[in-house]
Amino acid sequence: MDLTTHPFAHPAADGDKFHEECGVFGIFGSSDAAAHTVLGLHALQHRGQEAAGIVTHDAGQFYSHRSLGHVGDNFNSEAVISRLPGDVALGHNRYATTGDTVLRNVQPLFAELQTGGFAIGHNGNLTNAGTLRSELVKRGCIFQSTMDTEVIIHLIATSSYHDLIDRIIDALKSVVGAYSLVAMTEDRLIGVRDPMGVRPLLLGQLDGAPILVSESCALDIIGAELVREVAPGEVIICSHQGIESLMPFPPAKSRPCIFEYVYFSRPDSISQGRSIYSVRKAIGAALAKESTVPADVVIPVPDSGTPAAIGYAEEAGVPFELGIIRNHYVGRTFIEPSQNIRNFGVKLKHNANRAEIEGRRVVLVDDSIVRGTTSKKIVQMVRDAGATEVHMRIASPPTANPCYYGVDTPSREELMAANMDVATMARQIGVDSLAFISINGLYQAVGGVDRDGEQPQYCDACFTDEYPVSLVDLAQGRSPAQLSLLAEHG
Amino acid sequence: MDLTTHPFAHPAADGDKFHEECGVFGIFGSSDAAAHTVLGLHALQHRGQEAAGIVTHDAGQFYSHRSLGHVGDNFNSEAVISRLPGDVALGHNRYATTGDTVLRNVQPLFAELQTGGFAIGHNGNLTNAGTLRSELVKRGCIFQSTMDTEVIIHLIATSSYHDLIDRIIDALKSVVGAYSLVAMTEDRLIGVRDPMGVRPLLLGQLDGAPILVSESCALDIIGAELVREVAPGEVIICSHQGIESLMPFPPAKSRPCIFEYVYFSRPDSISQGRSIYSVRKAIGAALAKESTVPADVVIPVPDSGTPAAIGYAEEAGVPFELGIIRNHYVGRTFIEPSQNIRNFGVKLKHNANRAEIEGRRVVLVDDSIVRGTTSKKIVQMVRDAGATEVHMRIASPPTANPCYYGVDTPSREELMAANMDVATMARQIGVDSLAFISINGLYQAVGGVDRDGEQPQYCDACFTDEYPVSLVDLAQGRSPAQLSLLAEHG
Amino acid sequence: MDLTTHPFAHPAADGDKFHEECGVFGIFGSSDAAAHTVLGLHALQHRGQEAAGIVTHDAGQFYSHRSLGHVGDNFNSEAVISRLPGDVALGHNRYATTGDTVLRNVQPLFAELQTGGFAIGHNGNLTNAGTLRSELVKRGCIFQSTMDTEVIIHLIATSSYHDLIDRIIDALKSVVGAYSLVAMTEDRLIGVRDPMGVRPLLLGQLDGAPILVSESCALDIIGAELVREVAPGEVIICSHQGIESLMPFPPAKSRPCIFEYVYFSRPDSISQGRSIYSVRKAIGAALAKESTVPADVVIPVPDSGTPAAIGYAEEAGVPFELGIIRNHYVGRTFIEPSQNIRNFGVKLKHNANRAEIEGRRVVLVDDSIVRGTTSKKIVQMVRDAGATEVHMRIASPPTANPCYYGVDTPSREELMAANMDVATMARQIGVDSLAFISINGLYQAVGGVDRDGEQPQYCDACFTDEYPVSLVDLAQGRSPAQLSLLAEHG
Amino acid sequence: MDLTTHPFAHPAADGDKFHEECGVFGIFGSSDAAAHTVLGLHALQHRGQEAAGIVTHDAGQFYSHRSLGHVGDNFNSEAVISRLPGDVALGHNRYATTGDTVLRNVQPLFAELQTGGFAIGHNGNLTNAGTLRSELVKRGCIFQSTMDTEVIIHLIATSSYHDLIDRIIDALKSVVGAYSLVAMTEDRLIGVRDPMGVRPLLLGQLDGAPILVSESCALDIIGAELVREVAPGEVIICSHQGIESLMPFPPAKSRPCIFEYVYFSRPDSISQGRSIYSVRKAIGAALAKESTVPADVVIPVPDSGTPAAIGYAEEAGVPFELGIIRNHYVGRTFIEPSQNIRNFGVKLKHNANRAEIEGRRVVLVDDSIVRGTTSKKIVQMVRDAGATEVHMRIASPPTANPCYYGVDTPSREELMAANMDVATMARQIGVDSLAFISINGLYQAVGGVDRDGEQPQYCDACFTDEYPVSLVDLAQGRSPAQLSLLAEHG
Repeated sequence: MDLTTHPFAHPAADGDKFHEECGVFGIFGSSDAAAHTVLGLHALQHRGQEAAGIVTHDAGQFYSHRSLGHVGDNFNSEAVISRLPGDVALGHNRYATTGDTVLRNVQPLFAELQTGGFAIGHNGNLTNAGTLRSELVKRGCIFQSTMDTEVIIHLIATSSYHDLIDRIIDALKSVVGAYSLVAMTEDRLIGVRDPMGVRPLLLGQLDGAPILVSESCALDIIGAELVREVAPGEVIICSHQGIESLMPFPPAKSRPCIFEYVYFSRPDSISQGRSIYSVRKAIGAALAKESTVPADVVIPVPDSGTPAAIGYAEEAGVPFELGIIRNHYVGRTFIEPSQNIRNFGVKLKHNANRAEIEGRRVVLVDDSIVRGTTSKKIVQMVRDAGATEVHMRIASPPTANPCYYGVDTPSREELMAANMDVATMARQIGVDSLAFISINGLYQAVGGVDRDGEQPQYCDACFTDEYPVSLVDLAQGRSPAQLSLLAEHG
Repeated sequence: MDLTTHPFAHPAADGDKFHEECGVFGIFGSSDAAAHTVLGLHALQHRGQEAAGIVTHDAGQFYSHRSLGHVGDNFNSEAVISRLPGDVALGHNRYATTGDTVLRNVQPLFAELQTGGFAIGHNGNLTNAGTLRSELVKRGCIFQSTMDTEVIIHLIATSSYHDLIDRIIDALKSVVGAYSLVAMTEDRLIGVRDPMGVRPLLLGQLDGAPILVSESCALDIIGAELVREVAPGEVIICSHQGIESLMPFPPAKSRPCIFEYVYFSRPDSISQGRSIYSVRKAIGAALAKESTVPADVVIPVPDSGTPAAIGYAEEAGVPFELGIIRNHYVGRTFIEPSQNIRNFGVKLKHNANRAEIEGRRVVLVDDSIVRGTTSKKIVQMVRDAGATEVHMRIASPPTANPCYYGVDTPSREELMAANMDVATMARQIGVDSLAFISINGLYQAVGGVDRDGEQPQYCDACFTDEYPVSLVDLAQGRSPAQLSLLAEHG
Repeated sequence: MDLTTHPFAHPAADGDKFHEECGVFGIFGSSDAAAHTVLGLHALQHRGQEAAGIVTHDAGQFYSHRSLGHVGDNFNSEAVISRLPGDVALGHNRYATTGDTVLRNVQPLFAELQTGGFAIGHNGNLTNAGTLRSELVKRGCIFQSTMDTEVIIHLIATSSYHDLIDRIIDALKSVVGAYSLVAMTEDRLIGVRDPMGVRPLLLGQLDGAPILVSESCALDIIGAELVREVAPGEVIICSHQGIESLMPFPPAKSRPCIFEYVYFSRPDSISQGRSIYSVRKAIGAALAKESTVPADVVIPVPDSGTPAAIGYAEEAGVPFELGIIRNHYVGRTFIEPSQNIRNFGVKLKHNANRAEIEGRRVVLVDDSIVRGTTSKKIVQMVRDAGATEVHMRIASPPTANPCYYGVDTPSREELMAANMDVATMARQIGVDSLAFISINGLYQAVGGVDRDGEQPQYCDACFTDEYPVSLVDLAQGRSPAQLSLLAEHG
Repeated sequence: MDLTTHPFAHPAADGDKFHEECGVFGIFGSSDAAAHTVLGLHALQHRGQEAAGIVTHDAGQFYSHRSLGHVGDNFNSEAVISRLPGDVALGHNRYATTGDTVLRNVQPLFAELQTGGFAIGHNGNLTNAGTLRSELVKRGCIFQSTMDTEVIIHLIATSSYHDLIDRIIDALKSVVGAYSLVAMTEDRLIGVRDPMGVRPLLLGQLDGAPILVSESCALDIIGAELVREVAPGEVIICSHQGIESLMPFPPAKSRPCIFEYVYFSRPDSISQGRSIYSVRKAIGAALAKESTVPADVVIPVPDSGTPAAIGYAEEAGVPFELGIIRNHYVGRTFIEPSQNIRNFGVKLKHNANRAEIEGRRVVLVDDSIVRGTTSKKIVQMVRDAGATEVHMRIASPPTANPCYYGVDTPSREELMAANMDVATMARQIGVDSLAFISINGLYQAVGGVDRDGEQPQYCDACFTDEYPVSLVDLAQGRSPAQLSLLAEHG
């Protein structure tokens, strides 16, 4: 993630949602490495839409193509693929929150180390990146980007160890944070997951070629199979000698991000052996049990609320209907006519399906409430379409705390749940009732057991304010705004 | 529509679907005419994605902006809106099937007639355009585009009548075909629907400003209200004197396109007082009654099969699940890796949600089968995901005949249903059973009564081979390929 | 030329010069017709820099590529050339004065007539275009551009003659103006020069393939040879049967534009058997005789004043020096620093070569003075560089009258020589003395004889106010601003 | 300059010329720093056309805009200028020889050092860059570009000195090469010229704001005045405290590049108190004395041969004429017709002015002969135009040796003069006689005295093979091709 925007500044999260910030895909020993990586990144597009990059290696030379925008708009020509030869490839999708989406901030990063060429892509966030960066600059390191990933590269470059893997481990021992890294050299593909395994990383394979990937849906698109999850704290090294696994860090209780189940991952992905879709349906069913209400119709806020709404409707025995229709053609901006249009922003993407709403008691199901601004407009749109009652059910507990582990979240001041209780939220949003899934309801739906208060099974800091990885820069009041002295254009 | 591609040549309908070819939006007397038109076209984007154009009028001067691509990518800046001043605006979305998508073929067309400036946009197809064009060229008319819309303009320009409305009526009396026209002059907005009303056209209003539009969802986005449908054969004239309605053509039995209910229209649109969504659910329910089969799960082919699948599941009492997950990020092309990926094309957009499929008997619901190529791949993907049985249910009768009324369809040779019976289709697609809704089942779901064999209530030529509007050019063997002597680039 | 900008409105002539508005190049029966045409247009780039277009024909199909900008930036790829197959080609460079440089206004124009495909390019201006256009619109013709060339096409299309050549002659008999046309059909290349031959048109040939071209330098670049000039009033038809010449118009005294010698043509072109360069040197020598002045150095205003300056220096026996250095890298606009830079605009292109100026009496030689604004700045720059005296000598008589024959000139109000005498001009420009070549001096240098006051040998209306071709639209007060009802973007 | 292309590989010098590789412009304390820098770079465009960059500083923040292409095409909008606020600015033009003209290789380079933000632009070449780079990578430095300038930044960043100026001096003491650097920090503009002063650097001022610049013509354009040349080995520091000058390097005999007089500098620039134009005229006159030949006309090869041709003509008493006309519209590439055009490449830019050549004995004057390919074609073109004799006179001695000091030259194998004697060259080029100015003739014209064989007054290695600055990397056989492991696109 980007040091200029985290952990303090979150200007404008698009669509009133938390945003996963990265997807990675690496493959080793495939004759079509670049084409497979393009497809994998396409399947991971939901994890980062602003930019994408791919690095490959062939015969002593590395090749790179990076661009702003979607994978399908920029990596779709024979010309681009032919400029990415070789049987090792590393790709990265990036979500960026601010205007400084410039090419130098597009991953994978590449550096020519004494050990040779080295590329790295990263999903997560280092919580001591500012501290480390400051020390490295003192030692004469020159930073070219504002990404914390570059801190890792400089730590590797200046490590006193000789062997590259030793250097990587040495570097990561200085690092605090949540990270799933994939790196490549001339003859190796290397994956590392932080000791608590906050961000996901999986191992797959296609015809014997190992693949490291953020989500299993990126294996499906190329017909690859899921082998296993990379373990928290594991270093996995793919080479022509096979796959080697190291566990160099002190053992820690694993704490994977529970919000991947709620919203980030695609519903067709598999995590810890369970389909995300079925977990979401289970959350919906649990919601129906925890907070049932008499109603005529269950309507999802599309598309993220749909699986939970199906689960809710089944459990509650109330018909499920597409009461809100989504326009899949999205424009970046539209000029609003001068006589303001009621619920303008929401109408660009959603329209009420009046025939299913008018005269009915509606249960609206969504995955989460962030700022609450969109929810309010959607509720108003549903009321305008003639609903007699609107009850909102949310498939996650209230998100009252920002994430510092590689997720773009608004600041605490902007998080609705950080500033008011549920009853006040309900009034603000304009619903007849509002209910969130309980934290134990969520844990049960995801893992079948209650939350272990001593040693929680997941990172759930956004709900509980319990941050498993220490927030070093934040504790020191280090502002990332100081880090970039250059505003670059063109 | 475009004379170079119809009615004989249909190179490659994207996504194995019929394609509606146009959407129109006109507004008269609104201080934000251009901004409203942009939003209306955005809501109608599904009716034509290749190009869009808007013409406005202000103080004796007309203004035009046309561009290839989506409305949201090209009409989204203050700069563009400010170059479209005035309180009358006419917009058009266009679907084009071939490479000759050049700007001169983007509507609305504009001409300076003796009566002043005149712009026109068109949804439909003239079946005698080739014949008329040939006659007009003989009289010295010079054509600049390959669109049949231009035939209408030349007929108006060379009409011997004095008054513009008289000229329009005079021109349209020469024309055979299906058309919904919206035209504008300095001081009028004019709508015309062909005598059988094959293509849709509705009248709405916003704060007193009349709106002519292809679908009601484009009224919703700006908060306008639906007044009524324009009647088949009606000429409607909006001016500062109010709204005038003429019925200059001989009366004819109305025959609106029934496929608008099946696929073209957005589910949140209203047609003849019924919501498209509820009609589709009713078709699904009727399918369940007509062709029930023991099953564990009902799965839609997203997104067009979803409403019918919900209706089917409710009626059949079988759980509805999102068994196929759609990737909403779409790239134009991707390079397939050299070792071919099973069901490559389909996987770019769809992935099986294995957890909901494995070990189950699946009913797959789709809206139609065109070439059958996509259906076959989806069925295979569902089988690969572990379905024990796959039964396909189609929410329309077999589409065995091309449309010549402004819809992009493959040629008869490519239409699967034109070349084999249902049992053969089932084998080809690889399903355990295949059933289509009956024609009466469809009519009942749409209008509550059976098809009137003497005077069918809808145009259903694609199912029945009964073409209500005569196919003049086709009968004369006139090939549209002759019409364009110029291949233009840049 | 463009009806929206002539003959009344001349917003901003770039560089304070008259501007030739078009160059044409047509070739028949060459296996590389498009590539030859591209090179020919490149050699004619000085006659029109805003846009270029080429039409070719091959096997019953016409091909077109048009673009804004320079030939060398847009017609330089294999891809473009390969989309222009065939052995007949017609190309056109265009100078446009206003913002409406949109693609529909780029020539050649193409139309599908009853006689088949027809393309036309035009250098000149019809002085009754507005009158004709108004009549044609009344008859139902629809105009797509604002160019007078389109008037000719409609006259041809609606002519009652059967044969194409007859139609062309019939059309041109209605037309008043200065024009050199080149047209092409499937099997012919046709050139026409107006009865007075105001604008140039030459016939060349390359390996038996006839070429019609505005200037001989476009023959040199492809190694073709100059055959002869097309005669005033001649229609020349190149086909597989050879070259046919018709003289269908009443005989008239020829009046070629004398300003081609002064400024428009390239110095390496040949006109009426004389090199433009040597004519310009002769004008300079005549100037030295007519208006000699004691001086230390003769300095041209680069580059257009250079040949005359060399002639002046030789005749006067004063050293010729490059006292003003031109920066050949040209930017469209630059932002001037807030503390204004003395002679800002001129300095972007020119810099004084102080070493050749300081302490010297300078004779500055330029081809013409239009508004005088640039001259004033150059004189100031030369004075700032230390000249003790500055004498300006102009290689044309005072340009006191606008051109209506296809040249972009400022309005009379903006022409310095239309508003003051030479002494006042000298004071305004800031020179110690100012002299223009006399009209007879110019005629002698160009043709060796004095001007024939009864029947002048050239069109010299810009100097003499004697317009040889009648100004029909102007006489009727017809304003071209009325002609375009559409402002188009994108 | 770029390490990937020097000193071994010189793929294709455009236009058969040596190419200066950079121009720099820095200004301190001007309220319009960016606009002045844009204009200065425009005046220096001839020193580097491929890319340009500007860095400014305002209130603790640095701003950068870099782009490929000409200054006038990319830095010409209010928007760009407004994104470059502040009263300190540093700009750089770059010539790049290979396809790796990517933005990361566009100067000025920027780094955030411990001492704060630091930007640097460079004209020249370090002859030990490869050696230094290799050592720096060993120490953990990560390079982002392939430019030798980055070596300097890493040396500064890792210097053990505390103060920035001390660090710069420390860094430059490790460096061998020819360099004129301009650097900027938050509050200083710093210029350094290498101990021998091979590449030019001048100090100017505008309203008290100091300016550091490669050539004086960039001062003229903004109305600034030339103060003096920066001395070889001088470090000049401009701050709000005024201008400080240091001479930290051991004294050395100055050796400015003599080829700046021959070709690189603009004729209106001043070097060591003499105008480049007058030096070139003096060379021409000396040529006429050294190698006179009976002739009818002296013709320059435009534009670089023009001043010497004027000098030659004056001295020889033979008329000077523009016998070759240059087309100033340049396209990057053109497709040659299949039947090859005689002297195709040359004809795109030049045309013989036959009237001045036919039947005459021609002296052709050019500044230098590099590969000789263009000369040969020009001579042929002149012969084809009817010259009875062609004598070529060259305003520099034979260029038989590559430059390693920041000039793009072909390899020795491609340099015509390195591979044959003058008589052979004459035969090859096809002239009746060929003569070069003698080395002493050149020294006399430039400085008024003969070359001092012991301690030559200029760097003239390209003529004499005497390299004043040692070629460290070259002596070690270090290939720059190894340096870049990454091929980057997009």
